[in-house]
Amino acid sequence: MFFCLPFKSKSQPDPADSESYSERKARDPAPSYRSVLRGLDSAAGSATILAQLRALLTEYKLDAYIIPNEDEHGSEIPAASELRRGFMTGFHGTAGLAVVTQSEALLFVDSRYWIAAEKAMDASLWKLKKVDPRAMVPGGFQDYLCNQLPAGSRIGVDHRLIPPALKTSLDASLPAGSQLVCLFRNLVDEVWENKPERSTDPVTLHPLKFSGRAAESKLAELRKTIATYSPTASYLVTPLDDLAWLLNLRGNDMFNQPLFYAYFFVSATDAVLFLDPRKFTPELKSYLHSIGVIYQAYGQVWDFLDEQTRLHPKAQVLVDSKASYAIIEVLKGKATVIASPINAAKAIKNDTEIQGFYNANLRDSVALVRWYGWLEEQVVKKKARVSEYEAQQKLNDYRAMGAHWAGPGSFISAYGPSAALPHYEAEEDDCLVIGRNAPYLIDSGQQYEDATIDTTRTVHFGKPTKEHKRAFTRVLQAHIGIDALIFPAGTSGTTLDGIVRHHLWKDGMNFGHGPGHGIGSFGVVHESSTGISTPFVLKPGHVVTNEPGFYEEGKFGCRIESTIVAVEKKTRRDFGGPIWMGFDRCTMVPIQSKLVDFSLLTKEEKAWLDAHNALCYEKLHPLLKKVGDKRAAALLGNFF
Amino acid sequence: MFFCLPFKSKSQPDPADSESYSERKARDPAPSYRSVLRGLDSAAGSATILAQLRALLTEYKLDAYIIPNEDEHGSEIPAASELRRGFMTGFHGTAGLAVVTQSEALLFVDSRYWIAAEKAMDASLWKLKKVDPRAMVPGGFQDYLCNQLPAGSRIGVDHRLIPPALKTSLDASLPAGSQLVCLFRNLVDEVWENKPERSTDPVTLHPLKFSGRAAESKLAELRKTIATYSPTASYLVTPLDDLAWLLNLRGNDMFNQPLFYAYFFVSATDAVLFLDPRKFTPELKSYLHSIGVIYQAYGQVWDFLDEQTRLHPKAQVLVDSKASYAIIEVLKGKATVIASPINAAKAIKNDTEIQGFYNANLRDSVALVRWYGWLEEQVVKKKARVSEYEAQQKLNDYRAMGAHWAGPGSFISAYGPSAALPHYEAEEDDCLVIGRNAPYLIDSGQQYEDATIDTTRTVHFGKPTKEHKRAFTRVLQAHIGIDALIFPAGTSGTTLDGIVRHHLWKDGMNFGHGPGHGIGSFGVVHESSTGISTPFVLKPGHVVTNEPGFYEEGKFGCRIESTIVAVEKKTRRDFGGPIWMGFDRCTMVPIQSKLVDFSLLTKEEKAWLDAHNALCYEKLHPLLKKVGDKRAAALLGNFF
Repeated sequence: MFFCLPFKSKSQPDPADSESYSERKARDPAPSYRSVLRGLDSAAGSATILAQLRALLTEYKLDAYIIPNEDEHGSEIPAASELRRGFMTGFHGTAGLAVVTQSEALLFVDSRYWIAAEKAMDASLWKLKKVDPRAMVPGGFQDYLCNQLPAGSRIGVDHRLIPPALKTSLDASLPAGSQLVCLFRNLVDEVWENKPERSTDPVTLHPLKFSGRAAESKLAELRKTIATYSPTASYLVTPLDDLAWLLNLRGNDMFNQPLFYAYFFVSATDAVLFLDPRKFTPELKSYLHSIGVIYQAYGQVWDFLDEQTRLHPKAQVLVDSKASYAIIEVLKGKATVIASPINAAKAIKNDTEIQGFYNANLRDSVALVRWYGWLEEQVVKKKARVSEYEAQQKLNDYRAMGAHWAGPGSFISAYGPSAALPHYEAEEDDCLVIGRNAPYLIDSGQQYEDATIDTTRTVHFGKPTKEHKRAFTRVLQAHIGIDALIFPAGTSGTTLDGIVRHHLWKDGMNFGHGPGHGIGSFGVVHESSTGISTPFVLKPGHVVTNEPGFYEEGKFGCRIESTIVAVEKKTRRDFGGPIWMGFDRCTMVPIQSKLVDFSLLTKEEKAWLDAHNALCYEKLHPLLKKVGDKRAAALLGNFF
Repeated sequence: MFFCLPFKSKSQPDPADSESYSERKARDPAPSYRSVLRGLDSAAGSATILAQLRALLTEYKLDAYIIPNEDEHGSEIPAASELRRGFMTGFHGTAGLAVVTQSEALLFVDSRYWIAAEKAMDASLWKLKKVDPRAMVPGGFQDYLCNQLPAGSRIGVDHRLIPPALKTSLDASLPAGSQLVCLFRNLVDEVWENKPERSTDPVTLHPLKFSGRAAESKLAELRKTIATYSPTASYLVTPLDDLAWLLNLRGNDMFNQPLFYAYFFVSATDAVLFLDPRKFTPELKSYLHSIGVIYQAYGQVWDFLDEQTRLHPKAQVLVDSKASYAIIEVLKGKATVIASPINAAKAIKNDTEIQGFYNANLRDSVALVRWYGWLEEQVVKKKARVSEYEAQQKLNDYRAMGAHWAGPGSFISAYGPSAALPHYEAEEDDCLVIGRNAPYLIDSGQQYEDATIDTTRTVHFGKPTKEHKRAFTRVLQAHIGIDALIFPAGTSGTTLDGIVRHHLWKDGMNFGHGPGHGIGSFGVVHESSTGISTPFVLKPGHVVTNEPGFYEEGKFGCRIESTIVAVEKKTRRDFGGPIWMGFDRCTMVPIQSKLVDFSLLTKEEKAWLDAHNALCYEKLHPLLKKVGDKRAAALLGNFF
């Protein structure tokens, strides 16, 4: 699924259900991300803060100030405390950067957000700058800084939030006399009176029964890799998902991601975790001690790295590509950027993690089918008005009843035209009622302690039109094309991209998102070290989503997403030896046959669909009977 | 098709055939490339020449001498006069480089040629160095020069035969005191007493009725492109196919390629062709004058370029990536390497050229089907012994009867296990008899004045086994997969690679060559600026081959190759606008149904096969009747 936001669960679990609750105490559901952002501060986007920021520009003798929306760790979804650009402009999209001068306040965004940005900002204060990478002059902020600001401009930035490449690029392109002024403080923070704090939720230990591999083992392998560079080399871990995986720790500092803000430094002899001291519980301290890791306060990392360069003047400090320019700068030329070895290692899931994906998907599929049972009864039999928002709440409730549930999920609950809007989010007071005239799409991400889930299904509660069926069937064929694919070792994701899409291309159809991404084991939803249409070579143990779709603007959309594991496969000929691979599917949610135009399917595709739905029946029916959900059990054979 | 070699036609055309002969005087067929190489010189690979070369090393104070097998223009198939490494070692494979020192004589080759090289060379003189790019230490000649030769070594080379990148790389990696010594002479030439001369065959004018676009127009466009770099920039054309296309000239200097050895220099005001003066016919001189091109002797290019740098010290000289290091060196820092704009322009065939592909393929398909008529009668009805070699001769004869025939073709004529050998070439005294127990593959390249042809078909004269049919059918499905493909503008060849192969992967099958390459319009068989599985974006007007295959070592091989033109296509939905493309097929040779396992085909694939064979019937039957070839006309409906 795409980056999507969690929501607030209101309804209570059905008392008739007798499943056990999560082993973790169900905390108060986190408020929806968007509501947090909007409620963040009535000052957001206001003239007052803009004036205050300009006063600081004067104080620091700056002609301009760059305001990214990033955190220091290159996280895909930073915590609310990091969203300075959102606070300054009032615009909360996932991408976009602001620049403030004494006379101008500019927001640079790409085409996904031009409309949303225009709506959100106060046009008397903020000017929208449309960035189009395909244009002759893309019009990005770099172009502005280099070509619009006068020569000799001092351009300030909190350099913990920018990549080294930006510094290099600006150094090369800024006119004579202009310079990037790197400040180890954030000027927006100084005007953000009610800035949210970073979470004080504890860091928890991720048990071996879920991780499948001790942190000591992962550390030892990392040290071996570091040593191949030189015996005195060390490595600084910046990405939060790398860090959590490495140490078998989890947190709750960001929405829908079990991560926590920290840095980690490791050399042949040392291992230091930099963390908010309020999180140093006795349990955590004891664990860290047992794996040979000492700990310091989060903010100490800068002095520590500075000291490292003086204590070990000849030693390399390896950093990964997400390290900020501030990291590179404090290391004073000792930094060597490498592709993160942790990223590659964590992409290959071990047997325990893979079993976790099967287990969690089975439980999640039970929840989904139970929920479909409820939803179908509401919409079709009772002809009740159920909104997209209410529907996703109910799904969250069903999931919360399952084992190892780890907090509210994130949803795209989209009926008809909603499904054709990228990054759609149903809002309690602004969404559609689920009807019977168009497909209804539910894309939902969910964290369980044994796996991260990302599943999408599209159903129709009425009579699909010819166009609905044609589109859905092409999407299904694309989905089957990957699920059933056999490919040789060494094949990269890029090679698979055409194999997915050509089914849709046949009808002159396509979709604008990626066909599939890596996914974490109780980690992030979007892992970057594997995926369909990425340049990484697929390896046994890689877990990816398989999610083609089709969207007709203003009308409808459909997507079919399951989680698949790359595995070795025996083939008829094994040409070139036992190098052949394929995928095994974890997701046990059936696919609705009503939306299929069977005249388009090949014999093999029809057999695939029958086999998939039969497998779901076989796995789910006993579990549904066990919990006494007759409605859902009956649905299995009828609705799908 | 692969790099393959022409042969010598012995048999006479069938007097019963009444087609007209080529408009060009049928010259004596060129001898087969391989026989030329072998007959080149009895001295090839001998101890004598090695000793003589070593004497020259002493004279020039060299510790080592590098001997590539290239020409100065980066041609895929250099003329015999350029094959110095072949002469020195006795090994004539298409790839491989030799290094001679006072104590060692080494041939560096990749795995395709380890066996052939070992057979060809005198092991008492030459040592085989197996290069394996996948190994930790690949073992190439650069590694040898940098790590095995003593520091302070002087390593000689004719730098007209090496790329600039090699010089840069060696400069960086050679140990202290060692250096590459660039000589503007070739030491192998000095010991090659009977070295063949470059051809004195004339350069001919390629008429507008075939080229579709005047040379003035192409020159004007090139000048526009050059001017975008700077008003004083100039461009040196090195690749011979670029040069021939640009000036609408053709030659006969190399096997099976209508090219001629020359350089071409163009600036805003000047255009100079450097050519063997023996080729300055009155007709050519007059033509060059009419298009504003002056001419000098081929060898004058070096002084000319040297003078340019002095006359125009501030001007850039653009060169393409095939320019040798000698070019870069003589330009003394004024050279800027760019991707050849001519290469990209000539990849987009104009309407005249495309019509030429249709016309030539139709004539060629007539010849092929007439030949199949003869071959089937021989092998099946008369049970005659026809060798692979005899068969390809006969095909050449049939083609030579057609209009615009431009010299003998090149062939892979391969029965049974021959077809599984890469780069197989049937030799008169060493080949198989075509039988009825295995598939027979014919891959043939042919030059016509209106197009270059590259077609492969596989047939079975007896009863195919289940394995023959399974393999052939998967190959056919892969072939159809590309032929029938719809794809959006902006799609590169790389995306298509998986779309071809996944049909074979399904059975754990694959093939080790490219699925399709660009092809010239009376140019080279392998054009590099487009193709399936190349990174170039496919554009309307690109002409490529579509040639999946499968090969079982020691048993059989099959390949199905047709020529296809990328075109715009209207689709059902035209999502994203009228950006959709597909292919139209030029090759009119039917595909034999006997080899197809119909149980594997989808409805659409079966319809494709029926439609293709019906189209061939519709196009060919009248032409076969017109020439009175009843045998071939009958074959159309039966054999295929």
